[in-house]
Amino acid sequence: MRACRREPVPYTPIWLMRQAGRYMAEYREVRARTTFLELCKTPSLAAEVTVTAVERLGVDAAIIFADILLILEPLGIDLEFAQGEGPVIHNPVRKPADVDRLRELEDVNALEFVYEAIRQTRRALKRDIPLIGFCGAPFTLASYLIEGGGSKNYVHAKRLMYDDAGAWHAMMALISRALAKYLNAQIEAGAQAVQLFDSWVGCLSPDDYREFVLPHTRSVIQNVAAGVPVIHFGTGTATLLELMREAGGDVIGLDWRVRLDEGWQRIGHDAAVMGNLDPVVLFANQDALRAHAKRILDQAGGRAGHIFNLGHGILPETPVENVIALVDMVHEMSHRLHG
Amino acid sequence: MRACRREPVPYTPIWLMRQAGRYMAEYREVRARTTFLELCKTPSLAAEVTVTAVERLGVDAAIIFADILLILEPLGIDLEFAQGEGPVIHNPVRKPADVDRLRELEDVNALEFVYEAIRQTRRALKRDIPLIGFCGAPFTLASYLIEGGGSKNYVHAKRLMYDDAGAWHAMMALISRALAKYLNAQIEAGAQAVQLFDSWVGCLSPDDYREFVLPHTRSVIQNVAAGVPVIHFGTGTATLLELMREAGGDVIGLDWRVRLDEGWQRIGHDAAVMGNLDPVVLFANQDALRAHAKRILDQAGGRAGHIFNLGHGILPETPVENVIALVDMVHEMSHRLHG
Repeated sequence: MRACRREPVPYTPIWLMRQAGRYMAEYREVRARTTFLELCKTPSLAAEVTVTAVERLGVDAAIIFADILLILEPLGIDLEFAQGEGPVIHNPVRKPADVDRLRELEDVNALEFVYEAIRQTRRALKRDIPLIGFCGAPFTLASYLIEGGGSKNYVHAKRLMYDDAGAWHAMMALISRALAKYLNAQIEAGAQAVQLFDSWVGCLSPDDYREFVLPHTRSVIQNVAAGVPVIHFGTGTATLLELMREAGGDVIGLDWRVRLDEGWQRIGHDAAVMGNLDPVVLFANQDALRAHAKRILDQAGGRAGHIFNLGHGILPETPVENVIALVDMVHEMSHRLHG
Repeated sequence: MRACRREPVPYTPIWLMRQAGRYMAEYREVRARTTFLELCKTPSLAAEVTVTAVERLGVDAAIIFADILLILEPLGIDLEFAQGEGPVIHNPVRKPADVDRLRELEDVNALEFVYEAIRQTRRALKRDIPLIGFCGAPFTLASYLIEGGGSKNYVHAKRLMYDDAGAWHAMMALISRALAKYLNAQIEAGAQAVQLFDSWVGCLSPDDYREFVLPHTRSVIQNVAAGVPVIHFGTGTATLLELMREAGGDVIGLDWRVRLDEGWQRIGHDAAVMGNLDPVVLFANQDALRAHAKRILDQAGGRAGHIFNLGHGILPETPVENVIALVDMVHEMSHRLHG
């Protein structure tokens, strides 16, 4: 929390995106008894995997176990997590007229199971471990519900954007209103910081981002309850960093394609940064891991406001012992740096 | 050719990556009679699709029809283009010891069918249309032969790189020696410029690029016959542009994620640039297409040394009439700009 506010800290705090995930035996054990969607919707299990990850790794923050797509159901989208195939949407938005099918989020309590998971997690976590809530950012959610699943080129999403800007903006505004309510309900339940995941936004040119995305992401962030730090994260965003900062966020996520020092410079030192180890380095030997982690800490240079993280989520086959080693290395090496 | 040398031109020249491809009926007709690999290996057919694309679109350059992976066969790699699945390598390099299995390219004439296709194309093309030869860049080829096909996270390639730098560099050096010979044989056959495709290099951090890639790409480019313009292209390279320039090339390819004016500034105006329309804009209505093309021409500002192109290859479902319209728009709008 202090790092989010760019206050001095005794060592660089670290947590890892997707730290509760398939790479961890404890998680696989829980998942063996339930489907992914049931796990998300059962607060006691979601709380269990969230807390277990923190304890097993020794990280400095928890992020609630959930999925960015859950919000789409109360908007009128049929969502299915097919076995081993990732999420599938059976009624994607393709034509401008489909946008009218989307429902306004009237009842934020449709996602009560997330808030209950947050309450249970908060009770189970050690007091000094902050709990992060999150949502997908408007662009990533919009492209998901247009493409109907994963995508390589985002042809459907961009076609709607270019061919009917009116329908595009109406859809993005509706999603953004829902997201602001959703994040504030998470905060009310006990989330102490919130993160927007714009994982797919790196497919856009800066000019398209400015026109089609920035106003909507900004409206979500502006509507988050005052005083709660917002982490604004994307991947492949090297040319979007200044614009993401303009959209908002106390902490901007960087991926490994940009050097942390250069990225921070461009964002401005009046914001905090989070990042930015390539998740694949966790597959390497520990000497290479240490060298890469050290390079990032050196680039941060002990400046207040750096949260160590990966540049994207932990991959499913990652060796858990390397993840634990990374957390230890960052604590140990940064302890010297800070003082 | 004049644009490559940054000499004044009456209008901005344009050609499009993968301009001979599945989106075009004439190409699909040829492909219906043969496999992809047979098409590559039959000079008369390769020449036919190359020339047809130029004539149908009215572009200002031809690029020889071939595949970046063809060079892997004489290096000892079993390559198969499976129906609808893209290339598959049955004996990928995974362990450092596998690197020893790779063979030095002793006989550059193993790829005689490419040179013959170049000769036939040169004879069939109008005199004022230059013919571009090409190869994959060392990193993209190395990651292909390690991953064994397409990849999302490049875990195997990066693991080899991090865990055994010696094996990595030996492999990259062997590939680079082969590529220099291959490009020079294409030039001898009649290619007037050559392009290196580093399509996958955008998965790397700048520090990893500098250490593991730059010296090898540089050695290929330095060994290309003097006086022949080299186009150095990659995607997702927004943070690598300065390093790619350092590796070499008279023309640097830009994708749409970077604004053309900013990218050119960073590369330096003493190099030419190629790019940088998002290929997905070709799916939009022609007003949006014109607006995006105009923005790029405006960013180039009539400066000598801009070759208009996409930021990546034409996608298979692209409407051919929009491709033709784009070529006309660029000629027409840039004529005013230059004139």
